[in-house]
Amino acid sequence: MRGTVLHGPRDIRFEERAAPSVVKPTDAIVRITATCVCGSDLWPYRGINQVTEPTPMGHEYCGIVEEVGKSVRSIKPGQFVIGSFFASDNTCPHCHNGYQTSCQHKEFVGGAQAPLLRVPLADGTLVATPDIPPDSLVPSLLATSDVLGTGWFAADAAGVKPGMTVAVVGDGAVGLLGVLSAKQMGAERIIAMSGHPSRQKLAREFGATDIVTERGDAGVERIKEITKDIGADAVLECVGTQQSMMQAIHSTRPGGGIGYVGVPHGVELNGEELFYEHVHLHGGPAPVRRYLPELIGLVWNGKINPGRVFDLTLPLDQVAEGYRAMDEHRAIKTLLRP
Amino acid sequence: MRGTVLHGPRDIRFEERAAPSVVKPTDAIVRITATCVCGSDLWPYRGINQVTEPTPMGHEYCGIVEEVGKSVRSIKPGQFVIGSFFASDNTCPHCHNGYQTSCQHKEFVGGAQAPLLRVPLADGTLVATPDIPPDSLVPSLLATSDVLGTGWFAADAAGVKPGMTVAVVGDGAVGLLGVLSAKQMGAERIIAMSGHPSRQKLAREFGATDIVTERGDAGVERIKEITKDIGADAVLECVGTQQSMMQAIHSTRPGGGIGYVGVPHGVELNGEELFYEHVHLHGGPAPVRRYLPELIGLVWNGKINPGRVFDLTLPLDQVAEGYRAMDEHRAIKTLLRP
Repeated sequence: MRGTVLHGPRDIRFEERAAPSVVKPTDAIVRITATCVCGSDLWPYRGINQVTEPTPMGHEYCGIVEEVGKSVRSIKPGQFVIGSFFASDNTCPHCHNGYQTSCQHKEFVGGAQAPLLRVPLADGTLVATPDIPPDSLVPSLLATSDVLGTGWFAADAAGVKPGMTVAVVGDGAVGLLGVLSAKQMGAERIIAMSGHPSRQKLAREFGATDIVTERGDAGVERIKEITKDIGADAVLECVGTQQSMMQAIHSTRPGGGIGYVGVPHGVELNGEELFYEHVHLHGGPAPVRRYLPELIGLVWNGKINPGRVFDLTLPLDQVAEGYRAMDEHRAIKTLLRP
Repeated sequence: MRGTVLHGPRDIRFEERAAPSVVKPTDAIVRITATCVCGSDLWPYRGINQVTEPTPMGHEYCGIVEEVGKSVRSIKPGQFVIGSFFASDNTCPHCHNGYQTSCQHKEFVGGAQAPLLRVPLADGTLVATPDIPPDSLVPSLLATSDVLGTGWFAADAAGVKPGMTVAVVGDGAVGLLGVLSAKQMGAERIIAMSGHPSRQKLAREFGATDIVTERGDAGVERIKEITKDIGADAVLECVGTQQSMMQAIHSTRPGGGIGYVGVPHGVELNGEELFYEHVHLHGGPAPVRRYLPELIGLVWNGKINPGRVFDLTLPLDQVAEGYRAMDEHRAIKTLLRP
């Protein structure tokens, strides 16, 4: 088969790769219906994370189960399934506590930008939809695989509750779906921080009540103005830079919460400053598996339409253009169809 | 009057000072029944925090109201009252949210190691006991003023709930009362990290079920052994050094919580490491005022005896020996009687 491989900075190739097969009895092979490019794929694409060898790319996926290993019990060939970027057994103590991305047996799922994907620990990792979905639902179901689950975790980790004032730092797909998540969790006022008109528009569609275009200290100043010098009750940090993290911390009221899901790059926190800011800090790789049943249900029942973040759809063999469009900010998020 | 003044490293003097008087109409003057030396007083005493001018010391206090300003409504002369280290109006949005130590009008209360103390914002800051307490209750009531409230906040901020496994880093008075607090909140297993036999004994009396004598990575290793490689559900960080903070972070299970109340000295947190540890982090200057009514009630009704942390009682004029004894680890905490 042909699949997506990153060879070096901005060197994405759609090239011949061995098709995956069942390696362990707990594996499943999924025929990909749709996959996409993640904001985190851009870190190695841009050379910020080093690429030491040709690397199969992609970790967001949904599709039809083609084959399962001998020990797989609940997942069956023919089902439409969604999984996330870490395979998890969903039975260990960490999974039991809802932190499947820290599963004691977790394995990274890579190489999803291809027609076929091997998913380890299939019973613990994959969630089947009630039926084969209509094509119109596929983008939103794909979104639950990572980008929605990550925005949802940001809101949950920040402690969003009904009536709260919430600020979202970052207007990428995760930030935008953080807005949607905060809205679903009952936030009354949602401040999206974005300088891009098209993203502001989508943020409003997802539930943002206010837009702040300023960044850094000026952005913090605006949040303080909007919240009458109190700060936001909850802030979602969806970028992962020093500036965005400090923006989040300084925008939060004492006792408020920050949910941070942008993978930190070069972020250092001063203990004393954090101490006097009086904030709650929680984040990490989103335990998407915890939320999948609920999020799939919301999509299935037409309550939410997170697939709106895909503003570019390409055939899989044009994946290189998909990366370029996101890198150059021409697209929020690229959906790929094998 | 004579009061306690720090002139420089290890230079504590009990010397003539102007007696405080009502400055603002919201002030109260309290005649001190008992005060004490705080672990945080040792930072400037040891020269780690610089002392630039002679500084009146002490911020833990209880006593009888002697006089109140014109605008004071609820606090009355003759009442036995307890306050905390930050005066707060208890009406601003931050106070309303339970973060009185971030009150928009907060003022530090200093100079309590003296016979008389001026307390600003008396109505918001001071809590009166139901009656004049018997002398036997004074040490435990004094403890609610800071050290118990701080240990309690550590447990609350760490998210201690019934049935949890809790670890406490630090065997000073705050850590020991963190053990007591975790016990009151229903923790099932409480691991006290302490290398001192007398402190271990008190930790057990307060509810510790396990003692870990190792520190740093070796301490983390022991916590992992005790918790079957899972980590503690909640960890109380009651020291404030880089080592103690990392010990706390690495001892916590994914999704678990750290309540940190040791004032951080030179602590730097790596964002990426924190991200993958998957922990909740919350702390800061303990909003003791939030807990005072509840904690006074527990002491008044004989449910807890936090005054047990005072293992040295001295007349106030021997305050210098009180500091020395704590500095040299001969005493856990020194109570001072004017």
